[in-house]
Amino acid sequence: MKVIAILYKGGKAAKQEPRLLGTVGNELGIRSWLESRGHEYLVSDDKEGPDSFLHKHIIDADIVITTPFHPGYITKDLLDKAKNLKACATAGVGSDHVDLNAAAAKGIDVFEVTGSNVVSVAEHAVMSILLLVRNFVPAHEMIKRGDWIVSDVARDAFDLEGKVVGTIGAGRIGYRILQRLQPFNCKEFLYYDYNALTPEAGQAVGAWRVEDLEAFVAQCDVVTINAPLHEGTRGMVNKELLAHFKEGAWLVNTARGAICNADDVAAAPAPRDHPWRTMQGPHGGGNGMVPHYSGTTLDAQRRYAEGTREILENFFDGKPQIAANVIIGSKGYATNSYGQR
Amino acid sequence: MKVIAILYKGGKAAKQEPRLLGTVGNELGIRSWLESRGHEYLVSDDKEGPDSFLHKHIIDADIVITTPFHPGYITKDLLDKAKNLKACATAGVGSDHVDLNAAAAKGIDVFEVTGSNVVSVAEHAVMSILLLVRNFVPAHEMIKRGDWIVSDVARDAFDLEGKVVGTIGAGRIGYRILQRLQPFNCKEFLYYDYNALTPEAGQAVGAWRVEDLEAFVAQCDVVTINAPLHEGTRGMVNKELLAHFKEGAWLVNTARGAICNADDVAAAPAPRDHPWRTMQGPHGGGNGMVPHYSGTTLDAQRRYAEGTREILENFFDGKPQIAANVIIGSKGYATNSYGQR
Repeated sequence: MKVIAILYKGGKAAKQEPRLLGTVGNELGIRSWLESRGHEYLVSDDKEGPDSFLHKHIIDADIVITTPFHPGYITKDLLDKAKNLKACATAGVGSDHVDLNAAAAKGIDVFEVTGSNVVSVAEHAVMSILLLVRNFVPAHEMIKRGDWIVSDVARDAFDLEGKVVGTIGAGRIGYRILQRLQPFNCKEFLYYDYNALTPEAGQAVGAWRVEDLEAFVAQCDVVTINAPLHEGTRGMVNKELLAHFKEGAWLVNTARGAICNADDVAAAPAPRDHPWRTMQGPHGGGNGMVPHYSGTTLDAQRRYAEGTREILENFFDGKPQIAANVIIGSKGYATNSYGQR
Repeated sequence: MKVIAILYKGGKAAKQEPRLLGTVGNELGIRSWLESRGHEYLVSDDKEGPDSFLHKHIIDADIVITTPFHPGYITKDLLDKAKNLKACATAGVGSDHVDLNAAAAKGIDVFEVTGSNVVSVAEHAVMSILLLVRNFVPAHEMIKRGDWIVSDVARDAFDLEGKVVGTIGAGRIGYRILQRLQPFNCKEFLYYDYNALTPEAGQAVGAWRVEDLEAFVAQCDVVTINAPLHEGTRGMVNKELLAHFKEGAWLVNTARGAICNADDVAAAPAPRDHPWRTMQGPHGGGNGMVPHYSGTTLDAQRRYAEGTREILENFFDGKPQIAANVIIGSKGYATNSYGQR
């Protein structure tokens, strides 16, 4: 079979660090295995426009591997041209860059490596919550510029203890965040999700469901977004909703940017002058934005590289996939994580 | 009585934010209460040299209040001159800026507001561990300068899950860190402390004691320092000990700088060209240094301002202090937190 992969550039870093598996340079570490099985394997980061690697090679590819970190957009248009395509595999979690409805209609499987980086992202979200609440960035920048003015950073620094934390989405990542926050003596944990946690799962993390989104955000000191991007979540956090947030609340979106602002959908990654890069609160804090790397720690890369290989192996051998990895299978959608109720 | 306090400058921030209690501007919020009790209350940030406020007013002060954030050093020399001094109260936790041996010899009480910011510092340490392991700072700086090169930051980004975390000091802060890290699926928790945890406390956080410091650090991916500064810990983490660290280990010192390098004792805060401000690993990460503000979040300030008031109230009324707040009482050292075994 012809397998193509769209990965991000690794450059010198990938040469120096073989654990950077998710790069063009290190090819998820599956080339020799794929070739030993007699498959063809082509890898590139070139994915935009009709002359790109992706657009040219998807035409006769059997399998296309993509990642959320440098997403190869698999549009309906591309799927129409991909006559041999049998499966899209996301090396990582989050397949919103694939037109899932179109894939389902065509009987093309879509897989992702469920669990490969949910812990990574949950850790990143907890870190981001702490560094926003505790006002880390201005404090560290003060250090770097040579100052030491405690009052200027302490004035916006709080403890997480005693705060109300709410997650939009209490799935694999959101739930892990709630788990990790258990010992922090928060005042309350809330969640907004179209799926209710089982009573046992809810009790285990002491989280209450709020069914109305505006009522939900109005109660939260910290709102963390852990939902996939789909039509139901695109632009969900907009001016209208923000008006219901508590004054001074902290918003951590480690999911997809477009959940927060419909205008920014087209731009991924954020352009150099994107306002989210430099926006800040009145005292210089409130911004902990980073490139999309939370789910691609070296630990996560190892897991999603191995998982990608397992998905492919199962696929080649006609073995069943791990159920949770299947977004769309032979019967269409196999998950309701992308907005299906 | 004459009560003097050495606090840090609040400037405009303190005027705008009354919750910045620990500043010269807001005076721990105890002036009107103190004056209603008939006491004199003088506050300043001026603490260095013979002509400073501290050196002049300590001579006939009955009580001196200091903080660890802008420490008024109460040396033996000053204590010799302080003929009326009955008590030193630390608004916060950590009284290493007071010559405790000299205070004990003179029968001067030393109090601190135990617990007022142990949670704040524990949260800060967990945040620092996460942001070092996950390589946050270079990732955020990349954002601010307009780049988006995932591989350059992912190459040094790891998950906390599966790592060995060890704390030097498993007391009020160190233990709270271990508690907060419980859900992170770390590989192992270790502690080095001259006091063993009770079997119950050790089991509750799954932490193993390592009695040899070199053997301890050699096993840790993350070393977090949570010990007071005293003669037994000053310069404890030095070249010789660092040689026993795992390669690539992360070191988080949210205690006192001087625990890490004897040469730096004299300088607090760090001078503008202090190497700790700008030091970084080969790929730009490894530095999450901030000014000393972790224990002075607004939540913590409220607690230690109230606690300072309670200490003073008990003192004035001849009521017993909360035992844990007493560092040195009528019988000398009332704690073994400062190196007394």
